Amino acid sequence: MYFKISKKDFLAALSTAARAISNYSPLPAFSGIKITADKDQLILIGSDSDISIQTILKKSDDCKLEIFDMGQTVIESKYILEIVRKIDTDMIEVEMVDGVQVKISGKSAEFKINGMNADEYPLIDFSKPMETFTLSNESLKQVITQTTFAVSDKETRPVLTGVNFSCDGSVLQCVATDSYRLSKKSMELSNNVKFNITIPGKSLLEVLKTLDNDGDVEIAVNDKKAQFVINDTIIQTRLIDGVYPETNRLIPLEFDFELTIDAHELLGAIDRASFIKSDGVSVIKFTLSEEGCILSSKSLEVGSSTERLNSASFSGEPLEISCNGKYVFDAIRALSGDLVKFSLCGEMKPFIIQSLRDDQVLELILPVRTYA
Amino acid sequence: MYFKISKKDFLAALSTAARAISNYSPLPAFSGIKITADKDQLILIGSDSDISIQTILKKSDDCKLEIFDMGQTVIESKYILEIVRKIDTDMIEVEMVDGVQVKISGKSAEFKINGMNADEYPLIDFSKPMETFTLSNESLKQVITQTTFAVSDKETRPVLTGVNFSCDGSVLQCVATDSYRLSKKSMELSNNVKFNITIPGKSLLEVLKTLDNDGDVEIAVNDKKAQFVINDTIIQTRLIDGVYPETNRLIPLEFDFELTIDAHELLGAIDRASFIKSDGVSVIKFTLSEEGCILSSKSLEVGSSTERLNSASFSGEPLEISCNGKYVFDAIRALSGDLVKFSLCGEMKPFIIQSLRDDQVLELILPVRTYA
Repeated sequence: MYFKISKKDFLAALSTAARAISNYSPLPAFSGIKITADKDQLILIGSDSDISIQTILKKSDDCKLEIFDMGQTVIESKYILEIVRKIDTDMIEVEMVDGVQVKISGKSAEFKINGMNADEYPLIDFSKPMETFTLSNESLKQVITQTTFAVSDKETRPVLTGVNFSCDGSVLQCVATDSYRLSKKSMELSNNVKFNITIPGKSLLEVLKTLDNDGDVEIAVNDKKAQFVINDTIIQTRLIDGVYPETNRLIPLEFDFELTIDAHELLGAIDRASFIKSDGVSVIKFTLSEEGCILSSKSLEVGSSTERLNSASFSGEPLEISCNGKYVFDAIRALSGDLVKFSLCGEMKPFIIQSLRDDQVLELILPVRTYA
Repeated sequence: MYFKISKKDFLAALSTAARAISNYSPLPAFSGIKITADKDQLILIGSDSDISIQTILKKSDDCKLEIFDMGQTVIESKYILEIVRKIDTDMIEVEMVDGVQVKISGKSAEFKINGMNADEYPLIDFSKPMETFTLSNESLKQVITQTTFAVSDKETRPVLTGVNFSCDGSVLQCVATDSYRLSKKSMELSNNVKFNITIPGKSLLEVLKTLDNDGDVEIAVNDKKAQFVINDTIIQTRLIDGVYPETNRLIPLEFDFELTIDAHELLGAIDRASFIKSDGVSVIKFTLSEEGCILSSKSLEVGSSTERLNSASFSGEPLEISCNGKYVFDAIRALSGDLVKFSLCGEMKPFIIQSLRDDQVLELILPVRTYA
């Protein structure tokens, strides 16, 4: 193996592949990046077995790739990233010197790194699943940021640590819930597909980091894996086994109370109230009436806060409702738009929050009982 | 207690006082900031008993302070900082409401915080010690940054965790060593003083954070404490007991080898070589001869690096010398100037590094033996 490549492009590709690598992988080979120098391309693979990333640098790209000798190796990702990041040159030479050591040369600096045997790196199947659809980078970003925050961080019900993607026709539905709150995003696709899969939240956050601002992402799924193809990079993730709960019946359809409020004012008020925590949770109370909305929080140990929200407009009988402040904060941040609408059914009934501008996203939150 | 004050100035003063507060203080009162509203000033005190900070806001300052009612309280620093930082107004009202609770009001938001009894806060003596001298902010910054990095982080010899300040006449000498390296800074004072004290490195780093870019700092010391007075803020620290070792005899006066090198090039090369570590330490080797300087590092497990330093100029017999790369890196960063000079006596003898531009700072490093 012997090739020459632009430092900038090599570093960007190594960083992309390294995103899949976990510090806690049980398999030593998975701490490395597999580098394959082909006839006219360089293939970089990183994986932690749950998520795998393959990215390709082609001779025809701007990366000034020259391949003198084909071959492959696996190099500890933290070492190769640090060397390539710090090397004192724009063009890097990478050469296998004695079947194990890899020489990386800059201008005055030269490094020899012990590589690992590429044959010991597990073979990863990057073949494309059958069901495919396309989303713009922008739409996929929205889908991920508007749902993933609501997945469960507890492993007691593994299926809730993922986002459920389902489609039977041309409307994609994405749902995340930790059973105390739920976030649901719908999106029209340009073709008909049929699937019902649950993608780990962790994997979606890695996909998010790789998304650019423009262009399209091809998404291909079957019942074993989901693949996101972004230019010359494939991000592939395992799915979470198990049946995702039927969530549509949880969402109320009729409401007795309605609150409209400026998103920015409410976020500021929740942020101010949230220093009051009991057991790490900040419970906020909305006191609602025709006169407006008062947000308060209280703890015997710390003290209390109370704030009138001047932008609030409420219709319905007077109502007091309490919930986890972080849930409302997260939900409102996930919605786009300046005005948000709370639709409520009663003190202890789940309520929904939506943006007045975008009815494709719905946030549902369960209230909590307070005795203060 | 009832006063009104500009949010910006109150927050800045609270943040200054809070710097002294440690999360690990055994005394509950020390997790709070003591606030005293006097006739025409507000006194804020934070302390962890090792270091204490008092800062004063006067009616005559720009802080728009109005005092309606004198009094004092102690408020948990994390709560008051968070409230004042986030409050929705430029002018804040602070009022004791029932002898315990403190009401903090903004525009639409109002907070009530449980205060602590100010009588339970230990009395801190901020009286000024006898021996005093003055340094510019800039000079004190230099003294601290050029020495403190070299203090020991091990408690086995407590006196080495501090920087020794000594003066018998008008030349201040500041020395820090962890017994593997030493950094010494000299500075001419404008008056004669006599003392020999050791200030905890940790306290000096807190002083550093409070230093502005201009103005003077008055430093007052006795054998119990050191006080730094910066405008209306007093930072006071305990000293470390014990006799500081006599270090002057450790510094060689005659040398057989001399290396001059560009500081920037050497820092880059050490940074590149330092990914190779054994037991967390990156040992670098200088191979020196009339032909120049080669920097290398090696570990059986990881691999090796080698780099020719083009700016190097060496005089003396050929020499190989190895040392902890971090020590050289820290030392060169502490020196100002583009060119640095290494003065050496032999493979296993301590060597010194100095800037060609400033002979008031001296860095001494002990080499290590390598078998590779």
